[in-house]
Amino acid sequence: MPTNPDWVKALKPSGRQGSQCLELERAKSNVDVDKLASHLFTDDALQRQANILNILTSDPVFDKSQNYFRGRNERIEASLARGKRLRQLEVKHKWSKEEFNCANELISEPTPYGLHASMFLVTLREQGTPEQHEKFLRKAENYEYVGCYAQTELGHGSNVRGLETTATWNPEDKTFTLHSPHLTASKWWIGSLGKAANHAVVMAQLILDGKNYGPHPFVVQIRDLKTHEPLENVHVGDIGPKFGYNTMDNGFLLLNRVKIPHINMLARFSSVDPNTSKYVRPSNPSLVYGTLTWVRSTIVLKSGSTLARGVTIAIRYCAVRRQFKDRDAPEEEERENQVLNYTMVQQRLLPLLAASYALHFTGRGMIELYDANQAAMNKKADVGKASEDSNTTPRSAGAEELNPGSDLLADLHSTSCALKAYASTTAGEGLEACRRACGGHGYSSFSGIGSWYADYLPTLTWEGDNYMLTQQVSRYLLKTARAVLKNSTKTGNFNAINSDNDTTALLKAYKRRADVGAAFDVIGDDSELVAAYAWRVAHLTFEAHRHRDIEKRSWNSLLVDFWRLSTAHAQYMVVKNFHQALESDSLKSSLSQETQTVLHALFRLYALHTLERESSEFFQSAACTIRQIQLARTNAVPALLEEIRPHAVRLVDAWKFSDWQLDSSLGRHDGGVYEDMFRRASEDNPLNNVVFDPYPDSNVLFKKDNRDDLRSKL
Amino acid sequence: MPTNPDWVKALKPSGRQGSQCLELERAKSNVDVDKLASHLFTDDALQRQANILNILTSDPVFDKSQNYFRGRNERIEASLARGKRLRQLEVKHKWSKEEFNCANELISEPTPYGLHASMFLVTLREQGTPEQHEKFLRKAENYEYVGCYAQTELGHGSNVRGLETTATWNPEDKTFTLHSPHLTASKWWIGSLGKAANHAVVMAQLILDGKNYGPHPFVVQIRDLKTHEPLENVHVGDIGPKFGYNTMDNGFLLLNRVKIPHINMLARFSSVDPNTSKYVRPSNPSLVYGTLTWVRSTIVLKSGSTLARGVTIAIRYCAVRRQFKDRDAPEEEERENQVLNYTMVQQRLLPLLAASYALHFTGRGMIELYDANQAAMNKKADVGKASEDSNTTPRSAGAEELNPGSDLLADLHSTSCALKAYASTTAGEGLEACRRACGGHGYSSFSGIGSWYADYLPTLTWEGDNYMLTQQVSRYLLKTARAVLKNSTKTGNFNAINSDNDTTALLKAYKRRADVGAAFDVIGDDSELVAAYAWRVAHLTFEAHRHRDIEKRSWNSLLVDFWRLSTAHAQYMVVKNFHQALESDSLKSSLSQETQTVLHALFRLYALHTLERESSEFFQSAACTIRQIQLARTNAVPALLEEIRPHAVRLVDAWKFSDWQLDSSLGRHDGGVYEDMFRRASEDNPLNNVVFDPYPDSNVLFKKDNRDDLRSKL
Repeated sequence: MPTNPDWVKALKPSGRQGSQCLELERAKSNVDVDKLASHLFTDDALQRQANILNILTSDPVFDKSQNYFRGRNERIEASLARGKRLRQLEVKHKWSKEEFNCANELISEPTPYGLHASMFLVTLREQGTPEQHEKFLRKAENYEYVGCYAQTELGHGSNVRGLETTATWNPEDKTFTLHSPHLTASKWWIGSLGKAANHAVVMAQLILDGKNYGPHPFVVQIRDLKTHEPLENVHVGDIGPKFGYNTMDNGFLLLNRVKIPHINMLARFSSVDPNTSKYVRPSNPSLVYGTLTWVRSTIVLKSGSTLARGVTIAIRYCAVRRQFKDRDAPEEEERENQVLNYTMVQQRLLPLLAASYALHFTGRGMIELYDANQAAMNKKADVGKASEDSNTTPRSAGAEELNPGSDLLADLHSTSCALKAYASTTAGEGLEACRRACGGHGYSSFSGIGSWYADYLPTLTWEGDNYMLTQQVSRYLLKTARAVLKNSTKTGNFNAINSDNDTTALLKAYKRRADVGAAFDVIGDDSELVAAYAWRVAHLTFEAHRHRDIEKRSWNSLLVDFWRLSTAHAQYMVVKNFHQALESDSLKSSLSQETQTVLHALFRLYALHTLERESSEFFQSAACTIRQIQLARTNAVPALLEEIRPHAVRLVDAWKFSDWQLDSSLGRHDGGVYEDMFRRASEDNPLNNVVFDPYPDSNVLFKKDNRDDLRSKL
Repeated sequence: MPTNPDWVKALKPSGRQGSQCLELERAKSNVDVDKLASHLFTDDALQRQANILNILTSDPVFDKSQNYFRGRNERIEASLARGKRLRQLEVKHKWSKEEFNCANELISEPTPYGLHASMFLVTLREQGTPEQHEKFLRKAENYEYVGCYAQTELGHGSNVRGLETTATWNPEDKTFTLHSPHLTASKWWIGSLGKAANHAVVMAQLILDGKNYGPHPFVVQIRDLKTHEPLENVHVGDIGPKFGYNTMDNGFLLLNRVKIPHINMLARFSSVDPNTSKYVRPSNPSLVYGTLTWVRSTIVLKSGSTLARGVTIAIRYCAVRRQFKDRDAPEEEERENQVLNYTMVQQRLLPLLAASYALHFTGRGMIELYDANQAAMNKKADVGKASEDSNTTPRSAGAEELNPGSDLLADLHSTSCALKAYASTTAGEGLEACRRACGGHGYSSFSGIGSWYADYLPTLTWEGDNYMLTQQVSRYLLKTARAVLKNSTKTGNFNAINSDNDTTALLKAYKRRADVGAAFDVIGDDSELVAAYAWRVAHLTFEAHRHRDIEKRSWNSLLVDFWRLSTAHAQYMVVKNFHQALESDSLKSSLSQETQTVLHALFRLYALHTLERESSEFFQSAACTIRQIQLARTNAVPALLEEIRPHAVRLVDAWKFSDWQLDSSLGRHDGGVYEDMFRRASEDNPLNNVVFDPYPDSNVLFKKDNRDDLRSKL
């Protein structure tokens, strides 16, 4: 639109300016933002981020100013251009994996190369033989082969064993025939498949001599390397617009008896002997659980920073925004109150601030545990040996049966399932709560929360649907309970449950104490607060055990109980990890006492606010009394909100999101909320380059249309 | 894209077809869909809907097939065309208000005329004098003046008293000067302002001789009637893209000392004497509360059908979709289980099904009460008389101070606030729960839930922010409690609280019974269940009263308690209204016994599921025992889910949404879910008309681009 007239340019927001508001906020607290950031991310990571940000912001292809205005076609076109440039920059600057990931985080939207650079390469690398690496992986790493990982089908998501696509072995010419027998066999939701990929790793039921050996991975070329048109008998395309993630070309794929050579079955873990046509059974499948565990732990870690983006935006805006005078303020008070001063707003936002830290520390704890365990396992592992009694196949998620008892990896895997479900739900729903806490302006795209939220939501479904996962967690907890009940002489101790198998220990501790009763001092003692969470898990586990094993109730009738149990387990893990992080030497040595005190208040707020929300399970299990819960609600939580309030802005500053990354009017570091909203709406908005004809009698729609071709900007 | 090849066209979904699934579902239940629909909506309304649907679907401008693919610019252009055609059809067919509204509901997205046809016309009509009707309303009704209602500002939403725009009276030339003194004074979020309106009703602070008389409405011309360009010193435009509602041109408006004549201040309720320059005080402001009450009651009624759309889609899809075998099914069972058979899915969806009915009956109950009250009031009203002691102005929402005690309108108004907040939150969050219950496909735009949810979300903020409103409710409840405590001799009775002032009665009943204690049979007796909800409200009210009046705690420190109190009050009203609807003669005479039994199960599910979720307040108030809550959770609710399950599809059929209205692959009445998903993705999807160049070394983005100009389809 024409630039704003001079009288508009001269206008300022009324009252105290946003920049002053945030300056005052930052002056009220001594939380050491830089040291805290360094503790959260390491100095190296922060320096890396600054370097990459510098490269990206100086390249016009990454200009974000039109992002919110573009429709899907323009967005994916821009995203393709960005994906290409990212790859060029990766080569040019010899970026490490961390640097490449950092660039993607700063851009904050997926590109059509997203699944190529992750799952396609990872699967080729992990499940291919050296010969297959030579044939497929090298070209994929050079982007000659652009690929994707095609598992989910139109009719099958969570249940991988139910996939319909078949791969039938033809002994006569030593090929596989890949086929989609039904419409529901169409691969669906596959990232990077719709438009970008020329190859796909296709998960298909392996059929040998009429017998089904379950889903296995096959490399299938789907498009011509030159024209990029689909090959014959391949029907492939984009699945259309979605609630979010619209810069990604999620695709569909149907195969009509497409033949591929023997070498295209990824054969590191299982294979077909080309001469005997016999199936060679998979070796040690637990390595694959390891990968899944790592992926889920990463989701937990990222859920913290994902939520923190929304919290950063909402807290900064609520510190700038004023609305109503305080009802109890003296008559002469002219100024309206900062929205962040209202207890109702604090109650909505500060527990989410606490959760963002809690999830970050939990994710970090998980990854440390995973790394330690992986190192120990690699010593013991006998990778080459085929385990004859196992029927399971690598990366076939339906096969996530776990070993009972004291297996540390099984314990870690179960915890990662529970935490993935809980953490991503918390982050997704928390982002929407942050958006609403911004009032009407939260609904504007310029808030920067809506699109971030919409893009994040698939995380609640992929890598294990959040409701489905709770069954796996409960299955593991039930098995552990059975083992404990069989062998109940050994004792456990709530304050020493960091030993090898956490779950076994907490169930034993409960059994030991069941006769003397619990009386945890949840308000006065942090260790007791953590112990109360463990107690609740044990109580719910033995209750589920009674329903299933003694009362013989059907699995289906217990699904709601299982979901509650898994959630309880996840909450215990979060509380425990947050508490451990606060007790760690690295934290104590790197942060000032005042900063530690504020983090401690965040821990207590997270734990007591959650306890209060889940109160009925806490007192039904007798982990604490109704009176304690009342006290948490009426005294402890309000006092913690008040204690944390002055530090809120600094606590979000420590996440170190750059303005460019947030791309939010409301969350600007300098508080220039209204100026930024106005500029984007008036000057950047292409709709203001047209003039409507508003009269219904006229079928002319636009009296004037001065819009540029949006694509000319790419 | 090229049409699907023949081998693709020949593919069918595997297993039992969706159409068979839904046929079987419908055969399992005797719920009389047509009679139930007729009871919910009346035959007239259903016939009207069928007629209008016929007109709309035969007009190409209303073709929905490209809706989900369009970006904002194309969508608002299509919506402008539709708005014009709607008006042409309204004239041509001489549509009533109901018919016009029905057409808008079927189209299911706002047009740029949305606020013209509602708030602009309503405000002119209600707040204008006969002379002003002649001057403004006639032209507005003919769409010569296209208008909007400009209240909210960039810096002020809920707090209307804090608006910054001024209207200063100039006695010398008998004009007002409208002015935006700061950037934050910019009108913002104003529907139909951004591109369509040539007039606005502007709410501005009336300044007479230097004194501020509060916000008042002024008619301001903003664009030239011929060129539609902004007038001088008017800066107006669209505020940009939003999370939803993108077919509406929400706008901004800045005024630089714009003069308007005396007649342009809407003067029915208050005015400036042009000769003496004196302020003439507003007459009976309660009539305006009446309008607000009506608007909010309508939101409650609509929240039921809004949620029902999501529930319809999710339940139909979950009846078609199969995933996993039942874990306890016999080995030989080959077929996977319908997703709707899983108790976890039932627990997520069936309470929402119950809520959709509950909210519908509650909204209807509210509107009936409002109509009855309005009729009674109109008899008594002394509209012309100015009330000298009131300072409040019509439609200044900040002024919603209510009369204490027994005023029926105040009671109704307070209830409408509580219910608006609760009902719209329930519908909004329920829609997202429905979307997630559809698994991965819920994320596709073709689910039809995402855009509906995104368009609905502003309802949680407008007509009173859902959190802000809870303060008004609590203020009223506190006042009523004070009146009851002052005059506590009269008795109330929980089973006769349908008398004039419900709130007073329930507080009295609580007081009377406080000494003998409650022991409501919440599982065995429906009236007792309703009474337990009333008890909880009374308990929380007196608790809040103690905090505020006796302990003298600050208002701000009680906001979280107030929010809980208001929610409790709303839940009580919903349970009570649902119960009354089931007891009504009209329902009993028009529905079969079996249908009534199923509706009764829905009532109990809604009430017991809510009781279980809010359990801590129920037992802390001693409305019921912990054991009762455990029984509700472990026995009653699961039994109700099982009882309702076979009727689920018929219960959503009774809402009578046409496929055209739902525009959902997943929610199709015939169950043809997968065929519809595939057709939209493959054949309708414009992104499939381009071929990417996927190689990062090449800066070419598209090897081929066969997209039509989207606009050529309008």
